[in-house]
Amino acid sequence: MITVKDLTDSYKKLKDKEVSLSGFIKLSRHSGSICFISLSDGTSFKPVQIVIEEGKIDKSTSTGADKQASKKTNKGADTGADKTSQSNLSFADIAKLGGGSAIRVSGKLILTPKNKQPFEIIAHSVQLIGASPEHYPLQKKRHSVEFLREIAHLRPRTNLFSAVFKVRSVASFALHKYFNERNYVYVNTPIITTSDCEGAGELFTVTTLPVASEQRTANSEQGAEAPNSTTKKSHPSSLIPHPSFEKDFFKEHAYLTVSGQLQVEAYAYAFSKVYTFGPTFRAENSNTPRHAAEFWMLEPEVAFCELPQIMDIAEDMLKYTIAYVLENAKDELEFLDEFVEKGLLDRLNKILKQNFVRLPYTEAVALLQDTAKNKKAKFENKIEWGDDLATEHEKFLTAHFEKPVFVTDWPASIKPFYMKVSANPSGSPNSVVRNFDLLVNLAGELIGGSQREDCYETLKQRMEQAGVCTISSKWYLDLREYGSVPTSGFGIGFERLIMYLTGVQNIRDVLPFPRTPGNAKY
Amino acid sequence: MITVKDLTDSYKKLKDKEVSLSGFIKLSRHSGSICFISLSDGTSFKPVQIVIEEGKIDKSTSTGADKQASKKTNKGADTGADKTSQSNLSFADIAKLGGGSAIRVSGKLILTPKNKQPFEIIAHSVQLIGASPEHYPLQKKRHSVEFLREIAHLRPRTNLFSAVFKVRSVASFALHKYFNERNYVYVNTPIITTSDCEGAGELFTVTTLPVASEQRTANSEQGAEAPNSTTKKSHPSSLIPHPSFEKDFFKEHAYLTVSGQLQVEAYAYAFSKVYTFGPTFRAENSNTPRHAAEFWMLEPEVAFCELPQIMDIAEDMLKYTIAYVLENAKDELEFLDEFVEKGLLDRLNKILKQNFVRLPYTEAVALLQDTAKNKKAKFENKIEWGDDLATEHEKFLTAHFEKPVFVTDWPASIKPFYMKVSANPSGSPNSVVRNFDLLVNLAGELIGGSQREDCYETLKQRMEQAGVCTISSKWYLDLREYGSVPTSGFGIGFERLIMYLTGVQNIRDVLPFPRTPGNAKY
Repeated sequence: MITVKDLTDSYKKLKDKEVSLSGFIKLSRHSGSICFISLSDGTSFKPVQIVIEEGKIDKSTSTGADKQASKKTNKGADTGADKTSQSNLSFADIAKLGGGSAIRVSGKLILTPKNKQPFEIIAHSVQLIGASPEHYPLQKKRHSVEFLREIAHLRPRTNLFSAVFKVRSVASFALHKYFNERNYVYVNTPIITTSDCEGAGELFTVTTLPVASEQRTANSEQGAEAPNSTTKKSHPSSLIPHPSFEKDFFKEHAYLTVSGQLQVEAYAYAFSKVYTFGPTFRAENSNTPRHAAEFWMLEPEVAFCELPQIMDIAEDMLKYTIAYVLENAKDELEFLDEFVEKGLLDRLNKILKQNFVRLPYTEAVALLQDTAKNKKAKFENKIEWGDDLATEHEKFLTAHFEKPVFVTDWPASIKPFYMKVSANPSGSPNSVVRNFDLLVNLAGELIGGSQREDCYETLKQRMEQAGVCTISSKWYLDLREYGSVPTSGFGIGFERLIMYLTGVQNIRDVLPFPRTPGNAKY
Repeated sequence: MITVKDLTDSYKKLKDKEVSLSGFIKLSRHSGSICFISLSDGTSFKPVQIVIEEGKIDKSTSTGADKQASKKTNKGADTGADKTSQSNLSFADIAKLGGGSAIRVSGKLILTPKNKQPFEIIAHSVQLIGASPEHYPLQKKRHSVEFLREIAHLRPRTNLFSAVFKVRSVASFALHKYFNERNYVYVNTPIITTSDCEGAGELFTVTTLPVASEQRTANSEQGAEAPNSTTKKSHPSSLIPHPSFEKDFFKEHAYLTVSGQLQVEAYAYAFSKVYTFGPTFRAENSNTPRHAAEFWMLEPEVAFCELPQIMDIAEDMLKYTIAYVLENAKDELEFLDEFVEKGLLDRLNKILKQNFVRLPYTEAVALLQDTAKNKKAKFENKIEWGDDLATEHEKFLTAHFEKPVFVTDWPASIKPFYMKVSANPSGSPNSVVRNFDLLVNLAGELIGGSQREDCYETLKQRMEQAGVCTISSKWYLDLREYGSVPTSGFGIGFERLIMYLTGVQNIRDVLPFPRTPGNAKY
């Protein structure tokens, strides 16, 4: 099978040669006795132009050469001749074909150095593989992303979604390649879990029992409500075995994971350098452009590694991925630069040359307070030491430094139990942890990471405070009992990265089949 | 940070040089004034031998050089000195250190060409990072895999599981690399789904509602029981909106996916060559060495592709992966060859040189019947055309041909609705589909695939017969309405592949944290 990519890669060698290829009609226009078809098989972002001239095409049945081409790997058990030789279409029939129709074209490849596309195919025969009817939903006009979300099974056929999902695939490979080249071990941490150690966000229950017809309440005995904050709140009783789960598949209340971090840490103690990359879930009932119930997360974890080194890794990984995508999804990024975010390519290229800022939270707060006091900028939200940064603060910081900013060493009170309490808070009014949030312009927080608490006693105390020190989390403490070492890691929401790489503003448009409240179609 | 892998890769250059490295004690033995420690950081399968001679080690606090080495990337926001300079251990203290303890060693690398390992480190100082107590569960003796399953968070530290999970990681990368090099687009199909089109196996419910305390029954109105067979059985009412789900997160009965195939097919129509690779789920209440409730599945799908070509791809992909793992997990496979399956390396190397057999099911049945009739082999199960093959039949076929066998063109009555009904069943007594099961010795069925039904009317009829032609599956029919083309694909259970590559016999030992009935710990 010759693909459009094959032709695009080697059209010079194929000059004036006969070629056969199959694809879908993206666009077709005809005037008088000539018809132009943009044919795409999705292997290349740009389609191939097919030129059909009335009177120059063959209307007999397909030639032996065509048959051979389409059957060339037929061997062994290929007992059936599924595709009977199909008739060639007449010019009139070709001109009538609607967008989305699949055809096979044979013709001569000619170079067109004066045109935008460097070559085209002068067809001598066209066969129909599968027609698309007039009511095909993807018409020539530009469709809204909202409309296209309703036909998630067809939208990858559009330029926009073809570009986005190719970038997604290329970025995913870049990340695997990055870690593989550096001898990391990829670990598939579990999706179903009873280990609700993180206590972060709302959980989906996984069950083979029937569900009750009434909505849970926050204090429901079986409720899966977990506190969204991470410390000092009492934990729901979800970890206490409940009689009703005795008959459930796992004989316990099981959930969909919110993060593979704790489990992958166990593997960091075995391999030093590991990562997990898989789907994670939040049953958060919020309809925002940045939240989905199901999303992919990449979480590297490194043993014998402290905070500064893990920031080095995060920065290096991000630049590697951007450079790889710039190199390997060129046509797609150019399209996105033109139609989605003007200046996208410049923005991405600029990052590659920058050394990210590293700014302790305490200094960030002082800078923000000073800026407000001196009226150099106006903020809606007042900030005090101990507060989380608001979006406007994040925006100010990335604009102020004109580059990505690692904000480090946050107040322990607003961060999870597993982050290492700093031995030296250097001027902070209260206890801080050895962590970072990487802020970037447009996307806000892109990566969050930390050095992990490696002291058994401190960790136990923090887990007790957070209400997650239960039988099902004992294994996590074991890691600090049996040869504890400094480990550090981070998490990056893969969809946020794709939004950052493509300029797309809604998470629903970077997930093939997004899951949001009330929507699990397909 | 210098890793064991760095030393292993470049020990010749480091001859007689001072090095510092950190790791865990795998084994320690001492006699008189000399102590030998096998130190591993997991970056290399083989540990490094550390030699400590009493009187030759430094008992003062750590040197400036050590501090510099461990802090060399400290910069920017590294405000805290987390690791205070630690004291060097005395010889007596070193000799007492238990397995699993983490230490930092400085010493001279010397070549040992006469020994099994090509170099060792003559320590001049040893510092403790984290001690492991006497009750550390991984003692010197060999532990049973059953015992190690109980400590899934510690077992990757053993040789066996370190080898298995490294092979798993390498094989995963090999597969991504294979498809990336061939311009496939990686698609993350959804994990949560309402599209129970496949009707294959039992489903897990995903919900935010409370769970009822009684076990569902097969005919329960809300029951998620799906028929295990694939045709002509009536489908449960699970796809009919039930009032109780109005208050659920997705407002419908949502499940964990059993396969991403149908969704990835939508993307094959956009990109021609695609694959999905992610977790899939079966709530099958069976405790066998080959079944887990959560497992990873790789599913490529190719447009403009018929059955023979997709078999070419399956065969090529399998050989590529085996070759890649042989090349990139050499030490691990040698270990597995020695301790898990004698002859593993020979078995894997042999496959690379073989052309797999392609045998229509009808011929396979005739061969089996003939063999039984002529008493060339004895079977427990009689086989008639229309029956599934029993394990003994699969074993006979792979032994008979002495190579992997694609059994193709199975009876339509025992295969799913989406497989293409053959136009030319060539001698079969009844309707067959264009599919294959790839049988290999030891593992049985390793890959299953098919050409997909591309005729709208035939597909609709088959979906109706299978009871899966509902509103939520209409989108799948759309793919055959709007420019239908021949597409083909296959699925390979990733754990089955890892078992095949490692010789490990139980699926619980190739999943980092296996999920089986009654077990979702961690």
